[in-house]
Amino acid sequence: MNVYNKIVKMKKISNFLLLLLIFPIVAFSQEVSPVKNVIVMIPDGTSLSVYSAARWFKHYNGLGEGLNVDPYISGTVTTFSSNAPIGDSAPTGSTYASGVLQQTGNVSIHPEVSDNDIFPVDGNRTYQPAATILEASKLLKNKAVGLVVTCEFPHATPADFSAHYYNRGNYNAIAPQIAYQNLDVLFGGGNSILTDDIKQHFNNKGITLIQDDKDALLNYDGDGKVWALFGEKALPYNIDRNPDRVPSIAEMTTKALEILSEKENGFFLMVEGSQVDWAAHANDAATMINEYLAFDEAVGKVIEFAKKDGNTAVVILADHGNSGFSIGSRECPGYDKLSIDQLFETVSGIKLSANGLESILIKTDPANIKNVFRDYTGIDITDEELQTLLSSRNYQEGDYTKVGTSNNIAHNILNILNSRMCFGFTTGGHTGEEVLLSAYHPQGDTPKGHLTNVQVNEYLQKVSGLDISLQELSDRIFVKHSEVFNGMTMKTDKSDPAFPVLNIKKGKNTLEVKAFSSVGKLNGKPFDIGSVVVYIDKNDTFYLPESLKEKLN
Amino acid sequence: MNVYNKIVKMKKISNFLLLLLIFPIVAFSQEVSPVKNVIVMIPDGTSLSVYSAARWFKHYNGLGEGLNVDPYISGTVTTFSSNAPIGDSAPTGSTYASGVLQQTGNVSIHPEVSDNDIFPVDGNRTYQPAATILEASKLLKNKAVGLVVTCEFPHATPADFSAHYYNRGNYNAIAPQIAYQNLDVLFGGGNSILTDDIKQHFNNKGITLIQDDKDALLNYDGDGKVWALFGEKALPYNIDRNPDRVPSIAEMTTKALEILSEKENGFFLMVEGSQVDWAAHANDAATMINEYLAFDEAVGKVIEFAKKDGNTAVVILADHGNSGFSIGSRECPGYDKLSIDQLFETVSGIKLSANGLESILIKTDPANIKNVFRDYTGIDITDEELQTLLSSRNYQEGDYTKVGTSNNIAHNILNILNSRMCFGFTTGGHTGEEVLLSAYHPQGDTPKGHLTNVQVNEYLQKVSGLDISLQELSDRIFVKHSEVFNGMTMKTDKSDPAFPVLNIKKGKNTLEVKAFSSVGKLNGKPFDIGSVVVYIDKNDTFYLPESLKEKLN
Repeated sequence: MNVYNKIVKMKKISNFLLLLLIFPIVAFSQEVSPVKNVIVMIPDGTSLSVYSAARWFKHYNGLGEGLNVDPYISGTVTTFSSNAPIGDSAPTGSTYASGVLQQTGNVSIHPEVSDNDIFPVDGNRTYQPAATILEASKLLKNKAVGLVVTCEFPHATPADFSAHYYNRGNYNAIAPQIAYQNLDVLFGGGNSILTDDIKQHFNNKGITLIQDDKDALLNYDGDGKVWALFGEKALPYNIDRNPDRVPSIAEMTTKALEILSEKENGFFLMVEGSQVDWAAHANDAATMINEYLAFDEAVGKVIEFAKKDGNTAVVILADHGNSGFSIGSRECPGYDKLSIDQLFETVSGIKLSANGLESILIKTDPANIKNVFRDYTGIDITDEELQTLLSSRNYQEGDYTKVGTSNNIAHNILNILNSRMCFGFTTGGHTGEEVLLSAYHPQGDTPKGHLTNVQVNEYLQKVSGLDISLQELSDRIFVKHSEVFNGMTMKTDKSDPAFPVLNIKKGKNTLEVKAFSSVGKLNGKPFDIGSVVVYIDKNDTFYLPESLKEKLN
Repeated sequence: MNVYNKIVKMKKISNFLLLLLIFPIVAFSQEVSPVKNVIVMIPDGTSLSVYSAARWFKHYNGLGEGLNVDPYISGTVTTFSSNAPIGDSAPTGSTYASGVLQQTGNVSIHPEVSDNDIFPVDGNRTYQPAATILEASKLLKNKAVGLVVTCEFPHATPADFSAHYYNRGNYNAIAPQIAYQNLDVLFGGGNSILTDDIKQHFNNKGITLIQDDKDALLNYDGDGKVWALFGEKALPYNIDRNPDRVPSIAEMTTKALEILSEKENGFFLMVEGSQVDWAAHANDAATMINEYLAFDEAVGKVIEFAKKDGNTAVVILADHGNSGFSIGSRECPGYDKLSIDQLFETVSGIKLSANGLESILIKTDPANIKNVFRDYTGIDITDEELQTLLSSRNYQEGDYTKVGTSNNIAHNILNILNSRMCFGFTTGGHTGEEVLLSAYHPQGDTPKGHLTNVQVNEYLQKVSGLDISLQELSDRIFVKHSEVFNGMTMKTDKSDPAFPVLNIKKGKNTLEVKAFSSVGKLNGKPFDIGSVVVYIDKNDTFYLPESLKEKLN
């Protein structure tokens, strides 16, 4: 056998082996009684050790024994991208929302095929928006829907449930979709992201918009749809929050439950503790623990509601790990015999996030920095540490994923804090371990054991009592315009390149649909499409409901 | 107020605050139906990420989807010492076994009081042996009892269930206790630790001893008690194991189930995957994954048995975290988008533990080291790496907890392996995060949610159907000799300082009890005490059954 034959033969064998290696993903087979209300809670980027540290922190500080989530921990979830074991919030949350595995950056959309797909990817669906459990709850069950987050509203996780795009960073495409979903409730950050078009739409639809007004939110007692946004982009970290002006995630969640529970067909609500992840990226242990505890307070409110209501299921799970955080570190010899005081006293004395402290130090007279640092952290810094802070003080890091590695003040603050504590971090990025799954169901039909992120979505479909699958829904509401209007005259207006408009003509009728909107125009008259129209530039395609063609009959 | 008064007042306040901070540990309140057979399985030192890596490893290597443990994951456990949040195998396993929180190094014994106790410690009980679930199963329920481990038999975890001492390292005190427990089954390592006295006891009691003979173990079909030991101390790592000569943990477990299931009153069995912990200490990812998978194979056998049997409950849980292992590391830029091949190909090509490879390289001609290294790891080392190996090659690290930090060959091998992979480690020691809890119960009465290690023991007491608590049992069988024989003539013979002998005289009768033995002598005639006598040098006290005094009436 010559070398060429040998290579061909080896290739054939390896292809055969490859086929053997591609297992289909296992379906979620458990029986589940559907309920009226479904709540998904996501502490973003929360690794197991954060729960442990938060629990010890509570004990040490006399805040009680155990977390609100504790009685409901029921398993773990492996959460991954279509082509990588370590997930990013966009694809992992999107898979919880839609059931479709996808790539880094993807927001509830069918992914491109890659050489590295872990399970087979259907290339015929690439770029098709993948309908989410939020959309299905609204369209198929006529439920109210809501999002409560502490990030800016078009950030990955809220977008995963309410928008579709291949690039999580394109807020131009994502923000309007979320607005045009006509959510019953959205509480979070991102005032600067609102466009005139979005505000006009809220006006047209009678959606109340509350901006930077905590009292207005807490006193809201209307029965319409309502958005409440705080801050230009994200809310502050909870540890930095001014409680007089900015609501806690528990307060926002309680208000959302109050509003949504009035809706007669039930509701779907997603609550995200968005910034545990950011604090983990920064390796900011005190902030990570505080953010998790703020989220856990919201868990307490949700579980209390669900138990009282008797017709509400709750699923609580992170979307991926982050930072390789551990209680204990090789930088701290003898750490494994330390007392709870030695392990948790310092972290308990820190009163601000590194970013929060940075924003104060940057305005502080150098002569006062040592005192101010001590006031907010309980830590006396050395002269050398002071010099490091001063030499970095004019550079602020804007990207939260880079705080852990930049030479900015926040990073240098964290180096000082971490040198005084015995926590370990392997990275400032996401990690690939499974995450904790917790759940409540009035009949005890919670998911149990180890699940994949796809199986989590299957559970959500079952507990929501959907009559058709999310894929079937996608094939109704996200069909290529070229198929829907096949044979009709179509023209795309790209005068605003960010928002192409599709014009269709049939006989005397004209239909106009705009990218990322749910408002169409039939012969110039606006109507509600019912779902958002998604435009993908890569294949110059509008994805929209099959039923739209009937408008032209 | 003068300064002294102020200090006194502050101290009073801080004592008051301290009292406020000491919460009693919450009791395990769930209802549990008792079963005939109870099996505890402990993958020692297994952090969450090990499960995740093992699962991806299986997928990548075409070994199937998911772990055997997966459907049974039901919660998490915080496992800690009486005076430190981060646990060592001795106190953590001891708390599972006995329900008593204790200190680093303690083996099922009431701890000393310290300034750092997390929950109040009763100083009146210090050094009292704490009866274990294994002892209670034997003494109160007349069940058969067994241990299957891959470490030497007096190592911390098996000792936790079958011996009592304040110092896990004192095999002189621990090994005989385990031998004198008259276990129905013990399979593990430690031939070099057997003493003539232990062998004589086996002889006297008709306990079969199999040494380094896999076939004899697998073909054993007697109905007596049987020990099978392999190796001088621990068994080899599973990845280094010669399957012709050394049984796998699954094989040993299967044999133990076969023997124990014949016993009419049911059984208690503890199975430990002892060396996941050791590989974690060494930061040896390939070995850690392989050790976990070997353990998981045993889990499969146990669950299969339990389901078929219908009267068996299983609890599976690590005793603490180790190494801060993560899939992903800052040393590996861009790691979070790597494919499964990029993350798992290298680790899948490693065929030996670092220790196993060390033992080969140490005998290898320097000119051949590069080739041999490639043969066993798939990795081409650089000239510089070769020099590092050669410069360290004469030094072998004997202590497995130090492999990760010593300048021995194994450590330098691991530096090379880890530089080719994207796994992170924060330490070569234990870590303080909660561990996964998995469980099976025929009626579904598994422990759920988050538990403390004390609550795990309460579950074991309930599922074993004990009529009295372990503490009550301790107060029957571990009473101070000065109390039991109060008023009689007592003399301690310390001619063998490791094994003091207590002589008691009452009228014409003499009683003789020996430290760490279960055989007493009444008027020179041996009899079975039923439990082991524990001698503590620190308070010069023998702990023994209250009922012994009746022998002298």
